Amino acid sequence: MSLLAVGTIAFDSIETPFDKVDKIIGGSANYIAWSGCHLCQPIYVSAVVGGDYPQKEIDVLHERGVNFDGLEVKEDEKSFFWAGKYKMNYNDRDTIQTDLNVLENFLPIIPESAADAEFVLLGNLTPEIQLSVVKQMSTKPKLIAMDTMNYWIKNEQYQEGLKAILKEVDVLIINEEEVRMLAKNFSIVKSARIILENMGPKFVVVKKGEHGALLFHENKAFFAPALPLEEVFDPTGAGDAFAGGFMAYLAQTKDISFENLKRGVIYGSVMASFCVEQFGPNRLKTLTKADIDQRLEDFVDLVQVDIELRD
Amino acid sequence: MSLLAVGTIAFDSIETPFDKVDKIIGGSANYIAWSGCHLCQPIYVSAVVGGDYPQKEIDVLHERGVNFDGLEVKEDEKSFFWAGKYKMNYNDRDTIQTDLNVLENFLPIIPESAADAEFVLLGNLTPEIQLSVVKQMSTKPKLIAMDTMNYWIKNEQYQEGLKAILKEVDVLIINEEEVRMLAKNFSIVKSARIILENMGPKFVVVKKGEHGALLFHENKAFFAPALPLEEVFDPTGAGDAFAGGFMAYLAQTKDISFENLKRGVIYGSVMASFCVEQFGPNRLKTLTKADIDQRLEDFVDLVQVDIELRD
Repeated sequence: MSLLAVGTIAFDSIETPFDKVDKIIGGSANYIAWSGCHLCQPIYVSAVVGGDYPQKEIDVLHERGVNFDGLEVKEDEKSFFWAGKYKMNYNDRDTIQTDLNVLENFLPIIPESAADAEFVLLGNLTPEIQLSVVKQMSTKPKLIAMDTMNYWIKNEQYQEGLKAILKEVDVLIINEEEVRMLAKNFSIVKSARIILENMGPKFVVVKKGEHGALLFHENKAFFAPALPLEEVFDPTGAGDAFAGGFMAYLAQTKDISFENLKRGVIYGSVMASFCVEQFGPNRLKTLTKADIDQRLEDFVDLVQVDIELRD
Repeated sequence: MSLLAVGTIAFDSIETPFDKVDKIIGGSANYIAWSGCHLCQPIYVSAVVGGDYPQKEIDVLHERGVNFDGLEVKEDEKSFFWAGKYKMNYNDRDTIQTDLNVLENFLPIIPESAADAEFVLLGNLTPEIQLSVVKQMSTKPKLIAMDTMNYWIKNEQYQEGLKAILKEVDVLIINEEEVRMLAKNFSIVKSARIILENMGPKFVVVKKGEHGALLFHENKAFFAPALPLEEVFDPTGAGDAFAGGFMAYLAQTKDISFENLKRGVIYGSVMASFCVEQFGPNRLKTLTKADIDQRLEDFVDLVQVDIELRD
C-alpha cells in the first residue's frame, strides 16, 4: 500500500469575507499529505520548495508517515506563493498574486523508493510535468489519478500534453466548470461520458463543492453529498484534501473496484469537509481517528433512507 | 388518505435553448395533480380557470382520481397565462408575459368534501390566499405544507401575511435563493435553522434543482440527490411536481415521522426528475408504476454505499 503524490508545497495568503491569514503553508501536495496521512502510510511526496520553507512543517508530516525522499529543496530560491481573496459565495475567488519562484523550472525526480508505488496521484501541475512522473515509474501502477485545472484545458499550447496524460490515467478528478470545458459540453453527465469513451480515464470524479461529488464509471454513477455545513471558513485546498483522502483510502485498501471507489469518494468528501473548517490545512492537522469516524457516520446518515417499493 | 392541493391551473408558453411550445397546460395545481395522482387518490384540487380551459384536461385528471369539486370556472374570463424563456443553464429564466386574468380576484372556496383533508398542500399563491385556505378547513389537518416565492418574500406588503401563514404550516418547501432571502442569511443550513426556530414550520425542504434537495428537522438533516440527467428538457413545474410527489406520498402513507418525510423527499425527487424530461406535464401524464419504481431504485442506487469504519 504505497501512494505517490506529486504536487506543490507553497505559501498562501488567503482572505475570506470574514477573516484573513498571511503566508500559511499550502499547495496541493501539502493538502494531499495532510488529508491522506490519516488514512494511509507511507505517502511519498514529490515536490519542490525554496530555502524559506520551514523544516518543521516537513518534520511534522514526516512523523505522520509522509516520505520526502522526492522533495527537492532549492536553498537559494523562494517557495511558490499564491495570494487570493474569496467572494461572499465562496465559489468565486480572485487571485491577487502568483509568484512561481521554485516552480518555474520544476521537474519532479521520482526517487527509487517511490518509483514502484502502486497508487499515484498527480496533483494540479502542467500536463508535461504530470506525464514526466508517469514515465519515471519503474512498474506500472495499479491506479493513477490526476487533477487538472481550467488554465491547462483552455490554453492551446497545453492541449497535446493534456491529451497525452489523460491517456495514461485511470481516474480524472475535475470540477464542474472544468469537466464542461474539457468535453466541450454543457451537461455534466454527457461530459463525463465523452471523457470516459474517448479520452482515456476509466473513472471520472466531478467535484461540485458545496453540492457534493459525482463518480462516473462505464454507465454507472454514484453521488456523494457534501455535508450541509453551517459555515465554510476557508475553501482553499478542499479539492486537494478530497483527492488525498480518496487516493489514500484506495491505496490503503488496494481495491480498485467501482464499489471501493465509491467508498473512496465518501472518504474524500469527509476530508474536504474538515479542510474548509479552518484556514489552510490547520483543521486537517488536528484530526483524530474519532473525528473522522464520526464524520463518516454523518455522511452515511445524511443520505440514509429505508425505502421499499409500493405494492 | 386525503390530500387537498390549492394552486393555479393555467396556460404556459415555454421556450428553452433547444425548443419551444405554445400554450401548453401548466400551473402549480396541474403539476401537483399530475405528479401526485400516481401516488395517492383522491387529490382534491382548488383552483380557478377561465372558459378557455379545455374540459378534457380536467376529465383526464378526474379519471386519475383527482377531485375538482373545488374548481371554479369563470366562463367569461381567460385562464392565467405565463410565458417564459430559459437560458442556457436552465437556472435562469426570463418571464416574457404574465396575464393574471382569472387569478386577479381569486379566493379559493374549499368545498365541504375537501375541508376535512388530513394533508394540505398550499401551492405558490399570495400568503393571504394560502391563509384563507387554512381558515376554511373544518378539522385541523395532520400536515400542512406550503410553497412560496421570492416575490412574496421581498415585497414589504406581503410580510405580515407571510409571517401569519408560516405560523400555520408544518412544512415549508422553498428553493435555495428563497430560503436565504427569507432568513436573511447566506448559509442554507443557518437559514433553515432560523426558520425552524422562529417562524413556525417544523420541517424545511430546500430544493436545489439539479443539486438535489435537503430536508431539515430539529437538528437533523437529510439529503436527496437529483438524478444526474443527460439532459434537462424543460424545468417548468419541477418544483411543483416535487411538492406533489412529496405530499401525495405522505398522504398515502399517513406517516409524518422524519423517516417518512425522508421517503417523501425521495418520491418528490423522482417525480421532479420525470417532469423535466418533456414539455409541461407531458411526461407525468404517461408515467407507469413500473417507470416510477425503476426511477426510485435508480435514486436509491445513486447514493448506495456499503461502508464500514476502519479498525
